[in-house]
Amino acid sequence: MADLKYGDLNALFINTTLTKSPETSHTQTLIDMCGAIMEKQGVSVESFRAVDYTIAPGVQPNMRKAGWDDDAWPELWPKVKNADILVLAGPIWLGDNSSEMKKIIERLYAHSAQVGDDGLPVYYQKVGGALFTGNEDGLKHCAMNVLYSLGHIGYTIPPDADAGWLGEIGPGPSYGDKMDDGSHAGFERNFTNQNTTFLAWNLMHMAAILKQHPIPAHGNVPSAWEDGERFGFEPPQA
Amino acid sequence: MADLKYGDLNALFINTTLTKSPETSHTQTLIDMCGAIMEKQGVSVESFRAVDYTIAPGVQPNMRKAGWDDDAWPELWPKVKNADILVLAGPIWLGDNSSEMKKIIERLYAHSAQVGDDGLPVYYQKVGGALFTGNEDGLKHCAMNVLYSLGHIGYTIPPDADAGWLGEIGPGPSYGDKMDDGSHAGFERNFTNQNTTFLAWNLMHMAAILKQHPIPAHGNVPSAWEDGERFGFEPPQA
Amino acid sequence: MADLKYGDLNALFINTTLTKSPETSHTQTLIDMCGAIMEKQGVSVESFRAVDYTIAPGVQPNMRKAGWDDDAWPELWPKVKNADILVLAGPIWLGDNSSEMKKIIERLYAHSAQVGDDGLPVYYQKVGGALFTGNEDGLKHCAMNVLYSLGHIGYTIPPDADAGWLGEIGPGPSYGDKMDDGSHAGFERNFTNQNTTFLAWNLMHMAAILKQHPIPAHGNVPSAWEDGERFGFEPPQA
Amino acid sequence: MADLKYGDLNALFINTTLTKSPETSHTQTLIDMCGAIMEKQGVSVESFRAVDYTIAPGVQPNMRKAGWDDDAWPELWPKVKNADILVLAGPIWLGDNSSEMKKIIERLYAHSAQVGDDGLPVYYQKVGGALFTGNEDGLKHCAMNVLYSLGHIGYTIPPDADAGWLGEIGPGPSYGDKMDDGSHAGFERNFTNQNTTFLAWNLMHMAAILKQHPIPAHGNVPSAWEDGERFGFEPPQA
Repeated sequence: MADLKYGDLNALFINTTLTKSPETSHTQTLIDMCGAIMEKQGVSVESFRAVDYTIAPGVQPNMRKAGWDDDAWPELWPKVKNADILVLAGPIWLGDNSSEMKKIIERLYAHSAQVGDDGLPVYYQKVGGALFTGNEDGLKHCAMNVLYSLGHIGYTIPPDADAGWLGEIGPGPSYGDKMDDGSHAGFERNFTNQNTTFLAWNLMHMAAILKQHPIPAHGNVPSAWEDGERFGFEPPQA
Repeated sequence: MADLKYGDLNALFINTTLTKSPETSHTQTLIDMCGAIMEKQGVSVESFRAVDYTIAPGVQPNMRKAGWDDDAWPELWPKVKNADILVLAGPIWLGDNSSEMKKIIERLYAHSAQVGDDGLPVYYQKVGGALFTGNEDGLKHCAMNVLYSLGHIGYTIPPDADAGWLGEIGPGPSYGDKMDDGSHAGFERNFTNQNTTFLAWNLMHMAAILKQHPIPAHGNVPSAWEDGERFGFEPPQA
Repeated sequence: MADLKYGDLNALFINTTLTKSPETSHTQTLIDMCGAIMEKQGVSVESFRAVDYTIAPGVQPNMRKAGWDDDAWPELWPKVKNADILVLAGPIWLGDNSSEMKKIIERLYAHSAQVGDDGLPVYYQKVGGALFTGNEDGLKHCAMNVLYSLGHIGYTIPPDADAGWLGEIGPGPSYGDKMDDGSHAGFERNFTNQNTTFLAWNLMHMAAILKQHPIPAHGNVPSAWEDGERFGFEPPQA
Repeated sequence: MADLKYGDLNALFINTTLTKSPETSHTQTLIDMCGAIMEKQGVSVESFRAVDYTIAPGVQPNMRKAGWDDDAWPELWPKVKNADILVLAGPIWLGDNSSEMKKIIERLYAHSAQVGDDGLPVYYQKVGGALFTGNEDGLKHCAMNVLYSLGHIGYTIPPDADAGWLGEIGPGPSYGDKMDDGSHAGFERNFTNQNTTFLAWNLMHMAAILKQHPIPAHGNVPSAWEDGERFGFEPPQA
């Protein structure tokens, strides 16, 4: 660990709750807990709720050019581009991701063909994770979709890259709700606290590793492939 | 790339086809194409078909201790343990992973609590990927489940960690089937060839990076957490 | 079939494309083809694009009461309530449903606790289906989520309740795109045409069956369970 | 309800636990509770554990003809063919269905092209449901896959066709485990009991409705489509 530096890392958490500020977002509580661990290591941490902005759905970087009157994404995009660590966080509805989560993934996808100076997609050298709160079911289902989407556009996914809280099946308290005994639902759940901590650290470790040792631009450069380079590929044999 | 070494890496491909040897496995053709790229860089590549062995279902390292007469997994496990790169490959049935794929994931999961000298799970410092062939649909669905499962037990997932081939929706040829014009289904599909090549390289790059710069054992060590270390975690605030 | 009547059925197709009118929606072409089969039997068919309306995300019937300035859903809801057949149709992005699809499901879910005179949820006696167009992958993944969501709120799902079109893996034409030879992508795909036809008929059959023979309100009435009726349930035995 | 008869219905529960008899299967406890509700109405109820039989993986009705020494499926198949109601039940591992569940679905799929005297697939006029027990997460994820698979091969899925139990996220008791206070995990969970009861009744209702009023063989008959009948289908319009 001695040679890894966390102080120059930037982390962004996008909260895809359906609840606008200033109403309470249970997911934000978890985000803040995770972000605080990073901040102690000097990481610059930022978060926003997607639902607080007029972000258009769609798969283009600027949807104003596609018939939408408003689109806050172009103003939010620099936060994503600047972040070494991106954590997509959200609630769970009917066992699946929120519509806001899917909208954010659409907008991230819109930039997946953009490349850096090395010819690699802009998301390469970045790491991704996921956080969820729900009252009963669906964390792994939501996480596998979110982490896959991030990986598909260029993020590296470190081990144990998801965490969160779920209560017993059926109606019940949401994460952080005050219980009759004065406690808060989920706050003392060892599993949730451990996984969120490990997530924070694995994201920092991997981001710092990639800062120091980026994924080489060889064998994975779209423009080079288009130009005919094959990097050792040979047609399959029947 | 100059300082990354691929020659001491080991890669294992597990083919979860439902077709026993020596019958043709379409997925194996893709595996061989991907593995050949790695071998050119000096990587030691091995593969086996799960269905060729009597592997019991279950979530324990040795199912003979749980009432099964036969279980080939304990003999296969050293291959997994020794591999820096693990690629789970398979067919797609009803849009989902094969039962053999799920069985392999169950058996991998059985070892997820085993740790190395550094206290990290045995799968840390390893990288994972996925390959699929199907005739019409389901690659991303299968990949998100496989890659999530690998990440959940400790693998790092590099960018663009899945590849494969699918034909147009509905009945049709499988990957590699000989067509009327003498060509083989999917062999000239640029998308499949590019993605498989990029997958091979990203797996090699990430495995080599982790060889040189392993994920530190700090903030993510189960036994330390059990012993009360908290790595900066503080209880959430209501 | 002699005694089943289709002429008094209402069908609603909700198109969750990300493309606003009057731009072309590939999914709409499929909807129109499916709806035309129903209209020939006298079914009243209607469709709308979600994205043409300012529908707020959220899980309440009227999001204006939850801090949103605009929400077209309360005006659209009567169409859903009136429809015996609901088909959710949409595109596929990154292998998953569009954000508009998830938003529609959230809004449908908001009404799931509403009951009719018989005490059954308002969606009972209705039937649901799904249609998708994508250029390469993901139909079954999207369909299983949509059909499950519909079933979870009270719809009956007849056999073979999904259909659509996907091209070969990788970039390629969308459904209906004009090809170099003057044909339109997917229009002659037998599998797509057959499945869409069977979907139309199975939805009509099942809706007509439920018109004639509704699901009885016994053993499945939430308020009765709350009042202590148990319908033969006895606590499980250890 | 007056005119619906349940006494001549047959129900089959297939338990896809990874635990062989006579060891305890938590899922079986839930199956028994659900089946008992049906038996009170005169339904003939049967269940078996897949893992107790040597069922080969694969997508053919008899895998002995495909290189497997043993295959118990041909002997089990009549139970499925005879059942008006099929409930697939199982555990949850890494948030997904067990390998035994996937194997059963593969074997069911193998018969999907078989048709009855009316030309409809053998699974038409049958209804399907799903039951799961897990200690923390994944019921909806598993259910959406199972119910979709059943629908895809011909089963009708009534409303609210899944039920089960999940505990709070993280390690914890399995369904039915004896707790320190002498109670059994999940047994008093109102949500689980209600949903399992409603599932039992909706399956009985729908099976009885289809007995009395089968899905007509019109617009959905594969051989008729092959013979050129189009049932009102007209090619899509660009």
